[in-house]
Amino acid sequence: MNDDLLHGGALDHMQTAYPNAPTPWVDLSTGINPWPYPVGALPPSAWQHLPTEAALQACRAAMAHAIGAPEAALLLAPGSELLIRLLPTVIAPRTVALLSPTYGDHARAWRASGADVIETADPLAFAGKVDALVLCNPNNPTGMVHERSQLGQALTRQAARNGWLIVDEAYADLCPALSLTPLAGARNLIILRSFGKFYGLAGLRLGALLGPPALLDSLSHRLGVWPVSGPALAIGKQAYADLAWQAETRNQLAAARRRLDKILLDSGLWLVGGTDLFRLVKTEKAQQLWHRLAEAGIYVRRFDYAPDLLRIGLPSDAAAEHRLAAALSL
Amino acid sequence: MNDDLLHGGALDHMQTAYPNAPTPWVDLSTGINPWPYPVGALPPSAWQHLPTEAALQACRAAMAHAIGAPEAALLLAPGSELLIRLLPTVIAPRTVALLSPTYGDHARAWRASGADVIETADPLAFAGKVDALVLCNPNNPTGMVHERSQLGQALTRQAARNGWLIVDEAYADLCPALSLTPLAGARNLIILRSFGKFYGLAGLRLGALLGPPALLDSLSHRLGVWPVSGPALAIGKQAYADLAWQAETRNQLAAARRRLDKILLDSGLWLVGGTDLFRLVKTEKAQQLWHRLAEAGIYVRRFDYAPDLLRIGLPSDAAAEHRLAAALSL
Repeated sequence: MNDDLLHGGALDHMQTAYPNAPTPWVDLSTGINPWPYPVGALPPSAWQHLPTEAALQACRAAMAHAIGAPEAALLLAPGSELLIRLLPTVIAPRTVALLSPTYGDHARAWRASGADVIETADPLAFAGKVDALVLCNPNNPTGMVHERSQLGQALTRQAARNGWLIVDEAYADLCPALSLTPLAGARNLIILRSFGKFYGLAGLRLGALLGPPALLDSLSHRLGVWPVSGPALAIGKQAYADLAWQAETRNQLAAARRRLDKILLDSGLWLVGGTDLFRLVKTEKAQQLWHRLAEAGIYVRRFDYAPDLLRIGLPSDAAAEHRLAAALSL
Repeated sequence: MNDDLLHGGALDHMQTAYPNAPTPWVDLSTGINPWPYPVGALPPSAWQHLPTEAALQACRAAMAHAIGAPEAALLLAPGSELLIRLLPTVIAPRTVALLSPTYGDHARAWRASGADVIETADPLAFAGKVDALVLCNPNNPTGMVHERSQLGQALTRQAARNGWLIVDEAYADLCPALSLTPLAGARNLIILRSFGKFYGLAGLRLGALLGPPALLDSLSHRLGVWPVSGPALAIGKQAYADLAWQAETRNQLAAARRRLDKILLDSGLWLVGGTDLFRLVKTEKAQQLWHRLAEAGIYVRRFDYAPDLLRIGLPSDAAAEHRLAAALSL
């Protein structure tokens, strides 16, 4: 199995591997909103000048307001993946309990740093017992959620031993009530946020880390003074300020997810989780189904650690929904 | 003195500090080409999708060709400043000899890593005697250049003790003959490149590190798989492939620099260096002159370590040249 084809977002590899597939490809391999926030004309200064501190702060303020976080606790970065990679350069937990399965970079980054990583379906059981407790909320790909109150208790236990609670909220724009952002800035809490998924602009590279001041200082030193591009700051500011678009998008994604669920259930698949940006199905025939979909020009996500799971993103229009339904019914 | 106002690119701070200055401000505080590579319409996928490996490699190939480097030795990143900040997380020289004065981040990054940093006007004298020898070529702000042959000898001496030669070529697009890129990939050589300055698109955040394979692997692990934005990859690919624009731009910048020199010399200033993107003047009245220019809505760069120096970028049109000449003649 070509390792590259295990991951999402490698449409170029798929096109090479399945040259006879019908085009255009239907890329359902990522959990990215297929109806992006509209990118209008940008001021030339966004491209030409080094991003000003004012531009950085305006984007930060809009994001903090949108996600309900104290502004001072928020550090912008060119995508949350870079933050996951950089965290081990500024904190050094020796023991990490990590929700499993989850986004694979967490385990890789902590293992590479030399930490002892325990992968567990129940990370909260380790609260107060490890240097860092890491989970995605809601989780990718399972969609599993942890309630704020549960996480608050875990944070108290982690704080008692001066350990970290690290919550990757890459998909939390879908369900703001789950987010720990109101607590952001607390001494032992780190929250990661992503712009690209909910706003459908993953190419822009915009994300954030929320944490206590000393941690933000250390990370900011790593990232330098111009970490985020001018276009990302300009578009991020506008999109985060557009609360009406956000509310409408939540409804639109929920409706699309219900249509996708119907397609999956009608074809006899067993839904085992997901969010409003992707669904997770479990089937013994996952690998055959993945190949069959690829031959039909439909790219979904499979997992090396779970050969019976497939993750399927939202089709962007009725034609894509129809192609998915047709390929599944073969 | 407000520390922020020491640095370039903080036009927002200047506007606050000098609210009565005539507008629009003439920002000569950076060494960024005021005639940027034209940004055309981008394919929607550049914004919406995670950047594909194909997009990354296409930009990398175009850049490698433009700068005369072996493609495999080149790692793209969101700006060379981030690379300067990250280098100490992947190599750990204990002794660093650094050209001085130069771009301030080099000293700060190595000192923060715990290295013993020697700042020297003659770093090559330390070749073979330190773990890392760091210089900018051409240098910012002095414009001092080191010939390829000198640097080749320094590299040999550094290699003999398995130390690094680190050359920041942020301004080397102006003078390709100085660049060490043909040697990129050699075991003890690190080269940094910047896209934003010569191409006039500093907001895009695009840069590169060239080095041996093991170093690229380590840094790539820090940066993750989507470090550079889709728009940066699309525009970078096009601009690096446009050799005609590059040649024309070198001529245009040289002509503008000659006009700037005339303005500076006509006003009695003493030119002590620079490149075709900025000039350095030395005057006992540098601080008064800086304030006078600010009051006239003209923002130039001053230096905490050298209160008698001012760095002045290229005015973007005849009106800006005229305003500079008028303000200098007061």
